[in-house]
Parts: sequence; C-alpha cells; structure tokens
Amino acid sequence: MTDTRHPSASLAVTPQTTLHRLPKRGSHERAVIHGILDAGLVCHVGFVADGQPFVIPTAYGRAGDTLYIHGAVASRMLKHLAGGAPVCVTVTLLDGLVLARSAFHHSMNYRSVVLLGAPRRVEGEERLAALRAIVEHITPGRWEATRAPNDKELAATTVLALAIEEGSAKVRSGPPLDDAEDLGLSHWAGVVPLALRAAAPVPDPALPPGAELPAHVRAWIAARGG
Amino acid sequence: MTDTRHPSASLAVTPQTTLHRLPKRGSHERAVIHGILDAGLVCHVGFVADGQPFVIPTAYGRAGDTLYIHGAVASRMLKHLAGGAPVCVTVTLLDGLVLARSAFHHSMNYRSVVLLGAPRRVEGEERLAALRAIVEHITPGRWEATRAPNDKELAATTVLALAIEEGSAKVRSGPPLDDAEDLGLSHWAGVVPLALRAAAPVPDPALPPGAELPAHVRAWIAARGG
Repeated sequence: MTDTRHPSASLAVTPQTTLHRLPKRGSHERAVIHGILDAGLVCHVGFVADGQPFVIPTAYGRAGDTLYIHGAVASRMLKHLAGGAPVCVTVTLLDGLVLARSAFHHSMNYRSVVLLGAPRRVEGEERLAALRAIVEHITPGRWEATRAPNDKELAATTVLALAIEEGSAKVRSGPPLDDAEDLGLSHWAGVVPLALRAAAPVPDPALPPGAELPAHVRAWIAARGG
Repeated sequence: MTDTRHPSASLAVTPQTTLHRLPKRGSHERAVIHGILDAGLVCHVGFVADGQPFVIPTAYGRAGDTLYIHGAVASRMLKHLAGGAPVCVTVTLLDGLVLARSAFHHSMNYRSVVLLGAPRRVEGEERLAALRAIVEHITPGRWEATRAPNDKELAATTVLALAIEEGSAKVRSGPPLDDAEDLGLSHWAGVVPLALRAAAPVPDPALPPGAELPAHVRAWIAARGG
C-alpha cells in the first residue's frame, strides 16, 4: 500500500544527510527530491557485502514516499537487501558540461538525490502495485498496454521498498563560476546543455507489419525530443 | 604516471566479479570495459562509512589501466577513500527502453562497468597528469584551452587513482525477449533508443559579445547531435 501518512515538506536532517560541501546546492525538500526521482529512469543501488561496497544500476518506481526496486529472486543484490541491509539509492540527472576559463572551475550541471535506509521486502497485494509503479514510472500508460505478470513471474521476482525518509538532493545549474581575475582570459567559457533524448523507436521484429505505435509511446518520445 | 605494464586482454575473474545473473551479458575484457568507461561522463562511487553505504556521482578520467577521480580536500568521500578504503566505481550508459508485450520482460538497453578496489592517493607529478586526464576525458582538447591549476588550487584538491584490475562490464542490447506464447498478443513491443544529447551551447554571460565557440567544443557538440 502506498504510504498514507502526511509527512512534512522536508526530510529530517540526520548526521548522515547533513550537507557539508556546498550546502547551498543541497535540499531536503520532498518536492525537490520527488521531482528528481520522477525525472530519472535508472538509480544506482549501493550495498555492502563482506565490507566491500557494490553499486548496481537498476530501474525503480515511486509511490508517494516509497521508492520501489525489483529484481530476480536469484539476484545476489536483492537477496542481500531483502534482509534489511543498509542501502543507498542514488539518482543522477546530468544536465550539462560547465566549461570554465580555469581547469579548476570546470564542473557539471546536474540534479541528484541520495537516499539512505534499510529496505523492506514487499509482500501481498503491494507487490503488484509496486511493479505497476516501476513500469509506470518509466513509461506512463505502459501498464495497461502489457500483459500483467502471472503467478510464475511474480514468484520469480523480489520487490523491495525503501521509505523516502532520510536523504537529500543536490542541484547545480547555471554558468561557470570563474575567479574574478580570470574573467579577462581569452578562453571560451559556458555551458553545453545535455539531456537524455529519444530516437526513432525500433519495432520488435516479430510485430506484424504496420503495427501502430501506441499513444503512450508516442507521447514519451515526443516529450524527449525524438 | 600511467601504468606501463602490459596487462592481459581480460581482467582476472575473482569471486566478487564472477557473473552470476545473465552471464551472457557480461564481460571481463579490457577493451569492452575501457570502451564503456571512455563513453561515460559521470561515475557513481560507492563507499562504506560506519557500515552505511554511500553512492555519490562524480566526474572521472582514465589513463591506461588507471581510473582517476578528484574532489575537494575537505570532501568526506575523498578523505575516506584516500585512506585506501574499499570502493566500487560504476559507470552506466542508458541506451534505450525495452518495451515488451509482458510487463515481466520489460527491460533497458544499457552498458555498464563495475570496478572494485582500494584507491590510492595520487601524489607528485602524477597529480597534474590525472587532472588533465579527467578534463580531457570529459571534453577532449579542453586542457590546452584553459588556465592550468595553480598551487593553491592543487593544494585544495585530492586526486585518487583506482587500478582497473577487478571488475566487469554488462551490456544489454537488442529487442525485447518476450515468451513465445506472448508473441501473438496485440501489444506493441520494441525499443526506444536513448542517448545523452547536447543542445546549443550557452556562452558565459561575462564573455565578450561575439566570442567564437572553439573547435573542440563544436566537435564535442557535433558528436552528440547538438
């Protein structure tokens, strides 16, 4: 079930999520965090096994103040995390190269969210809602346009939930910030905007000829300039 | 200094980098790993502090079999890792949405590299070479078109090196892989290709009017369809 509490507008700041470096770029506001999560397609999941950190990319979805990930029951990562091991889930959107006059002030424009916590294994009816949230997160409208999971597929899938309770967002935007004494240098400086863009869709070879692209896929591509 | 050994064409497979899930999608070949690293702009660095994993996005560069990252001397992550703590560095390139007829077989096309190891702090002349590798990794030709770091900037920067020795690549490409019995369903299936694309550059407001976009920036944008 989606979390139905009425949380405050900001996540509580903990020792682990206090922003030390460039705090002006940081935020604990739920609206900022949710906006970045909703704009991303892939998260990076960090966990520790025998003292070694691992960082694995995977899909995710959000429902209210809950983030969902899923994977094969046989997955080492899912097995490990299903036991409630500490996790870090990071979503990063790269918005541009920041080219300064000095090498030192080169940077990137980005939006990122770092979430900390211990996941719980999703059981019962929430499983289907979570899988729906993941599919709909990536391509809105897709869930109704596919065959739903059957019992065998559900049995092969582990679904985990992470409460969006501890974490922060960080955002850099705008032009390079060169030192005043460098502004007269002849080097070009500025931003090269970047975005994940869609290209023309590639129909599955097994589709019948002339199969029409559905509206939800057309809308997704159009929103990404494809 | 760049590693001048003559390594084998593949990384050694360790218990931690044995591919369990979908091993056909995996590779330990250096050429594959280097190719993915060279195509990425941002890595996700995983480390453990007091049992809690953290995953932080950052820029990187590669010189031979060494990956470099850098950051402020005051950065918690850099301080922690400079002591040789275990690290995981993951680079992920998202190549497309894979839309299947069944919800279960939805996937993404991607190329990713996961590197494990313990970083070393870079000292002496290698520091400047490493910073150059990072700047040139992101925008080839940029290093010669900027003011080089001065002593104060170098003193404020920690540079770390990770040997590209333990790790693996994983690649998914191609159409969805629906079950045979689903191929007759009427749902559209296929791939929506994705790529990070550049838009028109935004000159720094402090540039003199009419400042010409340098060739290395024009080439970078042209290569990304901007």
